[in-house]
Amino acid sequence: MAKGQALESNMDVDYVISYRFVKTDKAVAAAKFEQLVQALASVRLQTEVRSGDNHSILLFTKIASDEHLFGEVYRSRVRDWIHGVRAAAPPKETREALEAEPLYEAERLRIIYQLITNPVAEGGAGITPKEGEWENVESVFALHDHAYNAEWIKRWSTSYFLKTEDLDEIRNRLGEKIAFYFAFTQSYFAFLIFPAAFGFSAWFLLGHFSPIYGIVSAVWCTVFTEYWKHQEVDLGVRWGVRGVSKIEAKRKDFKHEKQITDPVTGETVSIFPAIKRLQRQLWQIPFALGAAILLGALIATCFGIEVFISEVYNGPFKSGLVFLPTGIATVFMPILSGILINFATKLTEYENYETHRAYEIALTQKVFVLNFITSYLPIFLTAFVYVPFGTLIVPHLDIFSLTVKPFADNDKQLKAPKAGFAINPDRLRKQVIYFTVTAQIVNLGMELVVPYLKRHGLLRFKKMQSDRAAKNGHAAPAPAHTDVPEDAAFLDRVRQEAELGVYDVTSDLREMVIQFGYLSLFSVVWPLTAVSFIINDWFELRADAVKICVEMQRPIPWRADTIGPWLDSLSFLTWLGSLTTSALVYMFSNDGLGPGGHPSSIKGWALLLTIIFAEHAFFVLRWGIRVAISKLDSPGLQKEHRERFLVRKHYFEENLSQLEKVPQMTEPGEAINRKGLEEDARRSSLKASTPEDRFWGRQRGWKETVAIGRSLIETANVEMSPERKKEL
Amino acid sequence: MAKGQALESNMDVDYVISYRFVKTDKAVAAAKFEQLVQALASVRLQTEVRSGDNHSILLFTKIASDEHLFGEVYRSRVRDWIHGVRAAAPPKETREALEAEPLYEAERLRIIYQLITNPVAEGGAGITPKEGEWENVESVFALHDHAYNAEWIKRWSTSYFLKTEDLDEIRNRLGEKIAFYFAFTQSYFAFLIFPAAFGFSAWFLLGHFSPIYGIVSAVWCTVFTEYWKHQEVDLGVRWGVRGVSKIEAKRKDFKHEKQITDPVTGETVSIFPAIKRLQRQLWQIPFALGAAILLGALIATCFGIEVFISEVYNGPFKSGLVFLPTGIATVFMPILSGILINFATKLTEYENYETHRAYEIALTQKVFVLNFITSYLPIFLTAFVYVPFGTLIVPHLDIFSLTVKPFADNDKQLKAPKAGFAINPDRLRKQVIYFTVTAQIVNLGMELVVPYLKRHGLLRFKKMQSDRAAKNGHAAPAPAHTDVPEDAAFLDRVRQEAELGVYDVTSDLREMVIQFGYLSLFSVVWPLTAVSFIINDWFELRADAVKICVEMQRPIPWRADTIGPWLDSLSFLTWLGSLTTSALVYMFSNDGLGPGGHPSSIKGWALLLTIIFAEHAFFVLRWGIRVAISKLDSPGLQKEHRERFLVRKHYFEENLSQLEKVPQMTEPGEAINRKGLEEDARRSSLKASTPEDRFWGRQRGWKETVAIGRSLIETANVEMSPERKKEL
Repeated sequence: MAKGQALESNMDVDYVISYRFVKTDKAVAAAKFEQLVQALASVRLQTEVRSGDNHSILLFTKIASDEHLFGEVYRSRVRDWIHGVRAAAPPKETREALEAEPLYEAERLRIIYQLITNPVAEGGAGITPKEGEWENVESVFALHDHAYNAEWIKRWSTSYFLKTEDLDEIRNRLGEKIAFYFAFTQSYFAFLIFPAAFGFSAWFLLGHFSPIYGIVSAVWCTVFTEYWKHQEVDLGVRWGVRGVSKIEAKRKDFKHEKQITDPVTGETVSIFPAIKRLQRQLWQIPFALGAAILLGALIATCFGIEVFISEVYNGPFKSGLVFLPTGIATVFMPILSGILINFATKLTEYENYETHRAYEIALTQKVFVLNFITSYLPIFLTAFVYVPFGTLIVPHLDIFSLTVKPFADNDKQLKAPKAGFAINPDRLRKQVIYFTVTAQIVNLGMELVVPYLKRHGLLRFKKMQSDRAAKNGHAAPAPAHTDVPEDAAFLDRVRQEAELGVYDVTSDLREMVIQFGYLSLFSVVWPLTAVSFIINDWFELRADAVKICVEMQRPIPWRADTIGPWLDSLSFLTWLGSLTTSALVYMFSNDGLGPGGHPSSIKGWALLLTIIFAEHAFFVLRWGIRVAISKLDSPGLQKEHRERFLVRKHYFEENLSQLEKVPQMTEPGEAINRKGLEEDARRSSLKASTPEDRFWGRQRGWKETVAIGRSLIETANVEMSPERKKEL
Repeated sequence: MAKGQALESNMDVDYVISYRFVKTDKAVAAAKFEQLVQALASVRLQTEVRSGDNHSILLFTKIASDEHLFGEVYRSRVRDWIHGVRAAAPPKETREALEAEPLYEAERLRIIYQLITNPVAEGGAGITPKEGEWENVESVFALHDHAYNAEWIKRWSTSYFLKTEDLDEIRNRLGEKIAFYFAFTQSYFAFLIFPAAFGFSAWFLLGHFSPIYGIVSAVWCTVFTEYWKHQEVDLGVRWGVRGVSKIEAKRKDFKHEKQITDPVTGETVSIFPAIKRLQRQLWQIPFALGAAILLGALIATCFGIEVFISEVYNGPFKSGLVFLPTGIATVFMPILSGILINFATKLTEYENYETHRAYEIALTQKVFVLNFITSYLPIFLTAFVYVPFGTLIVPHLDIFSLTVKPFADNDKQLKAPKAGFAINPDRLRKQVIYFTVTAQIVNLGMELVVPYLKRHGLLRFKKMQSDRAAKNGHAAPAPAHTDVPEDAAFLDRVRQEAELGVYDVTSDLREMVIQFGYLSLFSVVWPLTAVSFIINDWFELRADAVKICVEMQRPIPWRADTIGPWLDSLSFLTWLGSLTTSALVYMFSNDGLGPGGHPSSIKGWALLLTIIFAEHAFFVLRWGIRVAISKLDSPGLQKEHRERFLVRKHYFEENLSQLEKVPQMTEPGEAINRKGLEEDARRSSLKASTPEDRFWGRQRGWKETVAIGRSLIETANVEMSPERKKEL
């Protein structure tokens, strides 16, 4: 089989399981492997085994036939329906249901993945990669569709905009969770056009710190956040996943304190007391404070050194030394961040959440706090510490003289001038430009280049190793030596894919949300921010597609109906933007020189009043935008409405036939009257009639009621008329 | 039938329709009456007619038999299920369903009411009281259950607390909407115990304007608001109405601009463009401004006159004249409020909402704005205008000298002293006491006494009228002259009930919410506020019960799953409370004398900082309380969970039998292997096999996969071992 062909066919493989046994005793490994294959067979998965790279074997699985999927599809659809994701209960004949509503690729892969990984009690094979019993199962991954991927990347790289159909395609291939990321980034990209254009004009016409730009930017950020919420609902309905996040998937790592049997359902419920979790959650406060102090200290130190070197120090090597703090930050920041994120993960695990969703929300919140500090604190320091209090602080920066003492010619170069120091209003802008242009480009580059280097480096390393081994005479045979020639190219490809990393969509989402933060918080400093972002994001979207197709294993197509907790981060940044923008506009009015021309003339009450006013204007504005956006109709909501209507209609119609059986009174006329008479006669013959029966027996049928009513109306009118006339 | 008996039996009557024809030509009235009876008969309602008071006839209706209800019950339940109110689809056999889950009284009455009033297209009789074609239908009301009512009021007036069972009973009798009002008031009453106790201690120990009291009060208000939201969900599930507010009932007055036929559903959809509605809604802004200016001017004028008389004027009749502004307010305020509420209703109608819910929300918002101004503005004026700016404003109050000029002896009595005027710090407290004690008592009295007087006055007036008519010789015969003696007492009672007013639960709710506002906004001024309220509310709850039972017609038992838009008002007042309380605490620190002892020493920045700090502390607090409360489990949520579990279990079990049919692979062993071999043999004989088939054909059955996997593990281990040893 040629290499081209190997890329074309996936041999009908649904999932490949990479089984690694390097650290395990061979007998144990073999026994566990047998268990694995048996577990897969028990959920009706066909298997084939081939050798893999580096003490691993590759287990190929596919579903024996669609009929074997029925159980899982049905369970999944019933669960959806119970949670309101589907309007109607799934028909009991799954085969027909699947013919009427065939599975799309991502759905099929998701269901098979669930079949492999769900607990045995829920009908799955219970295989949990890298965990517990299945420690040897290194990964479970689907194979890339290379022909499609190539076409996809080619199409994207030649188009300016992604259409909804493009997003639909991602959803069909990679699942809703990833599709939501692309939809979000695409929405954001489209929304950036306006602030980019407006920002450019503002930069040209209004200068920096323009209140007009500030207001427009705050409105735009709010509109975007609220519009995206609306869009989420719409896409959720379009993709049939609205409400999916309410389906709670239990975490395997959840440790219950006690188990009780629900008296009504007979279900065994694992309980962990909420109060105990709350106690554990309280550790978040010292954690957040500790993280803020540690990261803040590092940032503030670098910042102090930088200010010292660039504005106090005037000895030799100044131009080189200014990079010293950047160097310190580059070295220590990732280390510290890594430790803290590690700690955050531990803490979240300790908090012992019952569902994946709760766990993810808790972790995301912590990660957001860390990212917030590392991304925005430097600018906050410049804007709200250096500028207003710079003249007070800078003279005390002598403490940093230690860092450059070796380079200084004499002590004078290390002393801050006691008087005459002026803050550098350009520092803030330079910093914002650094974070919104330089850092973004570096980031994008890293995202593409690092995995590439890693991959190729690994390949080269392996080749070197086997070359050396061959030289030494005891070469391990290439795993390919057992391959049937026909499958060789295909297996080679699978072995490569097995080595790839796992794509994590949340880190890409985080990047976008943090980027949005610069726009909402600081773009008033440098209105071209959005221009930089729009260019960056065009590449970002394509780079992410390339990353998924080339650098990573094909992701498991999870469902989602939202970008999750990042939505809250977005709202938070929008709100905070209203505070920072108004404060910056006030503090840097007169083009960066502070009100009245000097930072020292900043008035406390005026600053506070500006902030209060801006914040509450923002609240009112947000409310208005929410109301306005909620009025928007959307194809998604229309679709939902229609589905519900059809279900209701169906039920009503089914019921109609039943209703026919009930005795009619619509045209009762004589028929009913006669019946009534007969009954009445019968009744009065029974002397035991109640006052109620007698009351209702006085008028038989509606015609008699009408007749008596008529007479009552006539008599009333006639008798009353003399008096009425007198009154008139 | 004795009177006692008349109160005991309702003669199985479901609804009484009061048909009034005083202004209509008798022929037309008779024809319309026929239409009415016919419409009722068409939905299978039995009818009886009797004469009523004052040119009216009373049409009694009851459902012919429960079977006649089936259609409407089924429709209602399907609708509920589609909107997620019920977990499972209603069974198609309604009779069985009704036996399994019988209608409670309120549900039965609601369904019959819907049968009478729903449009013909939706299966109702389409009777709309007082509107359009049915202008003569004055009211449609159910009859009181007097025996139950007497017992109810007796039980309540001898108990301190209402239990959940008491609320369940209200729900079963009067429907969820009214039950929600009682549940809310009861919750509020129970929650008041703490601030009453704490407020009493604070008043005793901490004095007025205590920051400790302020913080505790703000926390309490937030806890109450958030707890009530949780409680609503719980009650909603308990009463099986959760999600009911999402079922949108179309408004009959909705005027569509165009009608389109939905291409998918074939449903005719009436459309009114959202943008046009938004334009109309923009009138709310001038309306709110206008109302604020009008009411504000009236309040400010009264306030100014009062301050002038009590603090500037020192002529004769001073003690009497101080009541002048109260008199002005008492006369003009209700008139102005009436006009504005009338205007608000017109505006809301003009805004042309499609659903009842949207209409009610829009109207409630406007009513809340009006109530907010009339209830709180006087105190706001005292606290935030009179106190800080009093010394500047009071000397200019000479303009009000006109109002008292006739009484003054000389001009000197009308002149404010140019200097030495000191604000009266007691004014604020007195005002708060007036609004939280006097006004509450007056209100409660009015609520009970006014309808009583109205009812008895009307009776006396009628008696006088008929006496006079009898004297003049052309007496209208009492309507009772046609009554069968047996029914006379019953009909007499029905005629009385026909004259009663219609109970409006929203006005009672509004009263409670406005009361809550005093607590959240101003209780820091006078910590005994909650003590006054707790006493007042004990009576209020009972008085409302009496009002419903005695003064009003039996209300139509509507469903609800929330107290509706008032919940937003509650949140708004809680938030605003954080601002006013913090501002008051700062401004009146030093026991009402302002920071440093003088109002003039209030610092702008310090006040603003206090407010900002308090507001954001409030936001954080609210978030924390929300999170904590969301963790609380509740019987309602447990019930919902159980219901869902049972439905799911039922479906899964039904599906199990189907799954059995699918070929098993769980214990495939030889069986499958043999099949596999045979198939394989067959396949390889066909030379047209694909690479995929060949790939999957290499290992037959999972046992072979295991065997080959084992050999791969063993070889890998053996061959690698020399190198591994070297590495170790």
